[in-house]
Amino acid sequence: MDVSTLVAQAREGRPRAVARLISLVEGASPQLREVMSTLAPHTGNAYVVGLTGSPGVGKSTTTSALVTAYRKRGKRVGVLAVDPSSPFSGGALLGDRVRMSEHASDPGVYIRSMATRGHLGGLAWAAPQAIRVLDAAGCEVILVETVGVGQSEVEIAAQADTSVVLLAPGMGDGIQAAKAGILEIGDVYVVNKADRDGADATARELNHMLGLGESRGPGDWRPPIVKTVAARAEGVDEVVEALEKHHAWMEEHDVLTARRRRRAAQEVENIALTALRARIGDLHGDRRLDALADGVLGGTLDPYTAADELVAGLTAQDEA
Amino acid sequence: MDVSTLVAQAREGRPRAVARLISLVEGASPQLREVMSTLAPHTGNAYVVGLTGSPGVGKSTTTSALVTAYRKRGKRVGVLAVDPSSPFSGGALLGDRVRMSEHASDPGVYIRSMATRGHLGGLAWAAPQAIRVLDAAGCEVILVETVGVGQSEVEIAAQADTSVVLLAPGMGDGIQAAKAGILEIGDVYVVNKADRDGADATARELNHMLGLGESRGPGDWRPPIVKTVAARAEGVDEVVEALEKHHAWMEEHDVLTARRRRRAAQEVENIALTALRARIGDLHGDRRLDALADGVLGGTLDPYTAADELVAGLTAQDEA
Repeated sequence: MDVSTLVAQAREGRPRAVARLISLVEGASPQLREVMSTLAPHTGNAYVVGLTGSPGVGKSTTTSALVTAYRKRGKRVGVLAVDPSSPFSGGALLGDRVRMSEHASDPGVYIRSMATRGHLGGLAWAAPQAIRVLDAAGCEVILVETVGVGQSEVEIAAQADTSVVLLAPGMGDGIQAAKAGILEIGDVYVVNKADRDGADATARELNHMLGLGESRGPGDWRPPIVKTVAARAEGVDEVVEALEKHHAWMEEHDVLTARRRRRAAQEVENIALTALRARIGDLHGDRRLDALADGVLGGTLDPYTAADELVAGLTAQDEA
Repeated sequence: MDVSTLVAQAREGRPRAVARLISLVEGASPQLREVMSTLAPHTGNAYVVGLTGSPGVGKSTTTSALVTAYRKRGKRVGVLAVDPSSPFSGGALLGDRVRMSEHASDPGVYIRSMATRGHLGGLAWAAPQAIRVLDAAGCEVILVETVGVGQSEVEIAAQADTSVVLLAPGMGDGIQAAKAGILEIGDVYVVNKADRDGADATARELNHMLGLGESRGPGDWRPPIVKTVAARAEGVDEVVEALEKHHAWMEEHDVLTARRRRRAAQEVENIALTALRARIGDLHGDRRLDALADGVLGGTLDPYTAADELVAGLTAQDEA
């Protein structure tokens, strides 16, 4: 099937076409460029929400409850579950998929697991393209859920319009993980499993660490802390409200466009660097790089001057 | 002091000048390029030996014993102790420096610790430049010792003419670490602490894993396994002999030049990529990248086409 037919079918909401397109962009297929250029005019409408947090805080349950809440509001929803450490693709996060199974028969929901290990450029490279597919397929809200492991959390946050950081009481690592950097990235904080002992203490500690007691500028965003029991859908409407407030605040203060522009610039950068790296890779065994290396070996060239010539060579290749 | 004076002094073997030059290249100072181009004609003479192995196998003790052995043979020796995980520079690996202190007053030995965390490009970027300084300063043998942690071992091996992999008996992780990839990189294997129980078993297991029993081509290098008690200098002369044999074998089979050429090409590549990344970084806030990002946001450009234009833009910048 050709790419434009696939894109047309995806835009009609056909899940198989969406799946095929994501597989094409995820696998860096030869049609990747064609897919991306065909999708381009249909993107830019989705609101992208990132969900991060340590394993066990209830990310999948919360995501599933958010899907239900958004569906009640009539929104088409896409879910991208990213496992940066899994070598498996498509079939990753099977357990989570099962938990999501209540949405499996809903044509207004598209759920996709994605593994990024071994990917050229990793998460930063693969996720935005899948988001673009879901966006073009008409998903109005895209929930990007990731297994929380340090850097990848931050990367996911960089892909999202709004970042939700989940914590749970009684998890020693909750606040510890928070210390490690998620305090910088949360636009909305959720203390899940709030029926457990220690939920109030976790929320208080978080409040303290975020410095929410301190005064802020009049236009500043003040990250709310929402308590939920996602397994019983308690507090989930409040999360949606917090998301909508953040969305509205971003639009009002021109933050949304700025974030998206930064994200697009970053994406373009990553692709450009990957292309340049590949192009240099193509030069291996090439006389040009060999000659430069020989010059460095023989002491007639220093490596910096050689690198200058290599860069200039890439330029010349452009014109050829 | 200007760079050419520093280089002249380093070539006379003045340790302070060598230290200053390494600090300049390590810190990516503005004089970096000048240092590298001034050094270039004086490089290419040193024989670079990499030493890797898990913590506790006795790398520093072995390195120190090798220094003694090479000094007996009248060679000028440089030691680069690289700790890829340490945030500290210069003063890193203090314990090792103390163990090396017997050589501290020997003008024919230059010892330098180096930390690479946080370095743009990391180990692959920083080590070759320090090696170049030691080479130009007249070190005939350069021993590059690294704290063995996965990828960095492989990177160090890529910088060396000959890679020595150290193991010790009774360390459960020894052979395990070997399984993880060091079997691919060793030109010479050393089972240190060979006075301990299990040394023969470790050597046998290693022999088996390396497939040394299998027949090889007539010109193939057969990595020797040398047993040492480095703390008593036992077996160290045999290690030097193994290194000299490998050196001679590489020269005889044109392997040395091929390795060094590949290394130089890799180095040039890394510098070129770093430069390109920096150049793209400089574009942030620039109208060009903003315009591309806006195009992607608005759906008039796909990110791949935008990346093409970015790369072409770097080209145009070249010519400006």
